[in-house]
Amino acid sequence: MEIQFLGTGAGQPAKQRNVASLALKLLDELNEIWLFDVGEATQHQILKTNIRMRKITKIFISHNHGDHIFGLPGLLATRSFQGDVGPLTIYGPPGLEQFVKTSLRVSRTKISYPIKFVELTEGGLIYDDHGFKVYTDKLDHRVPSFGYRVVENSRPGELLMDKLAKYNIPNGPLFGKLKAGEQIVLSNGTILDGRDFLGPARPGRIVTIIYDTRSTPTIAKLAKDADVLVHESTFAGNEAKLAHSYYHSTSVEAAEVARDNGVKKLYLDHVSARYLGNKAKKLVKQAQKVFPNTFLANDFDQITIPMKGTEE
Amino acid sequence: MEIQFLGTGAGQPAKQRNVASLALKLLDELNEIWLFDVGEATQHQILKTNIRMRKITKIFISHNHGDHIFGLPGLLATRSFQGDVGPLTIYGPPGLEQFVKTSLRVSRTKISYPIKFVELTEGGLIYDDHGFKVYTDKLDHRVPSFGYRVVENSRPGELLMDKLAKYNIPNGPLFGKLKAGEQIVLSNGTILDGRDFLGPARPGRIVTIIYDTRSTPTIAKLAKDADVLVHESTFAGNEAKLAHSYYHSTSVEAAEVARDNGVKKLYLDHVSARYLGNKAKKLVKQAQKVFPNTFLANDFDQITIPMKGTEE
Ligand SMILES: [Zn+2]
Ligand SMILES: [Zn+2]
Repeated sequence: MEIQFLGTGAGQPAKQRNVASLALKLLDELNEIWLFDVGEATQHQILKTNIRMRKITKIFISHNHGDHIFGLPGLLATRSFQGDVGPLTIYGPPGLEQFVKTSLRVSRTKISYPIKFVELTEGGLIYDDHGFKVYTDKLDHRVPSFGYRVVENSRPGELLMDKLAKYNIPNGPLFGKLKAGEQIVLSNGTILDGRDFLGPARPGRIVTIIYDTRSTPTIAKLAKDADVLVHESTFAGNEAKLAHSYYHSTSVEAAEVARDNGVKKLYLDHVSARYLGNKAKKLVKQAQKVFPNTFLANDFDQITIPMKGTEE
Repeated sequence: MEIQFLGTGAGQPAKQRNVASLALKLLDELNEIWLFDVGEATQHQILKTNIRMRKITKIFISHNHGDHIFGLPGLLATRSFQGDVGPLTIYGPPGLEQFVKTSLRVSRTKISYPIKFVELTEGGLIYDDHGFKVYTDKLDHRVPSFGYRVVENSRPGELLMDKLAKYNIPNGPLFGKLKAGEQIVLSNGTILDGRDFLGPARPGRIVTIIYDTRSTPTIAKLAKDADVLVHESTFAGNEAKLAHSYYHSTSVEAAEVARDNGVKKLYLDHVSARYLGNKAKKLVKQAQKVFPNTFLANDFDQITIPMKGTEE
């Protein structure tokens, strides 16, 4: 499970930061990649990575501002050129489907795969399959904006091989049954219960993505115990008033959410082009005073989210 | 008068060539820049040039395929952020206005300047002002596609100062009158007619831009005597059948137009990503056999179109 940032800027593209997009790579887990927001030229950014379009199966859109959606029609068209691509689901606020469909219709773009639109109007569980759940909730922006919480289901513990050694179990399906917590009977009549030979269940990983919003209580619920919280930081720590009036957040507000909700790592994203070099460093330092495990997201940065219990 | 190519690829963005766009820089003439087609990430390309968004006053769209229009909403939005920008006119086929307006409405993009849409349905003179005329005509593509011919009005000849020297005319408005071809009366009563002291009128420059089309007779009319013909070359010279079936042109078809219509320079544009390196060289060489003054357009190439009579 990795996150690769594809655009970490705000409002307009700049030389250093493209407009919003990030990829959640679930290749080992699902052989899929999920995109969060698709600003203009996201497909151009993808060209510079190892991401293959056909692996993208879900796109989650936070809100309909242009810097978060204008790359969608082009990306859908290019994905179609790849040939032999499977269906795609797009989650987002009302209006998004009309934007995409009008763009594809006017441009006479033929899409070779089915696209399903899931229109979001309120918070809740929006996906639950293949070992993952996705929750969403409303944020506080000038237009309807949604945060996302991706939760990996907890995994059964590993088989305690040391403890099993003395039973001389033959290689094969018996191990699978034990791993699934079932009972087995050995050739000598011994009955073993898998649950006695399993280590502790490993909780799944949690990734929370918060694009454009003011500081608002729903963020805490979405971010609770997240392994990684990606949070917009359009403004520096000392500009809370300005951030509030523009319906955005500061780096310190993001850090406070992380500190108060058991977050492991905070990545500051959606950084205005006004913060370059030392100014960006200052924006991050302000947040690190509140929550030390804070990092600045940059275009193309990739972070690995280790399985719980393996990160040390 | 310069042309800067912003995207010289076809269909999808590639590392070497972005999707279609070029800028006709009329800075000395009008203090304006006109764009032809706006593929996705045209604004990103512009970020790497010295083009200032506020100078863009007209946008001419050849056709509504995504690789020619998907950059429009973002570019219009970013132009609006510049503050104090004047009106903009967009010329293009039916449907374009709906695409732009839906994109701006769904994304709640507020545009700070008036946008005028001129919907093209047939050929003709579509602009005639400030010393320039723009003609359009229908091409032959899978969807309605338009070529453009930009004609600079001819300029009066220069004052023949040598011939005037003996009259000892005082510096000032009298020279302006002569230059305008008017009569003046000197203090000693001599009457001079400006028309007797003007060199030959200088014909204006002609730039023709032919995006996606099959070989078709209207191209010749648009390209007649052009100083620069920019012509799509989606296919290499030996692929005329393929080009025809895909409603596109070959490099040789473009060269034939140039050869047969008194064109000075031909730039091959809209080159498929299949032609890289030596393959692109071959595509150009095939055309040069037909019309030697043929060049391959590359992203960010800038060419100057000299005033007639000054190019030697
Ligand atoms: Zn934004
Ligand atoms: Zn095209």
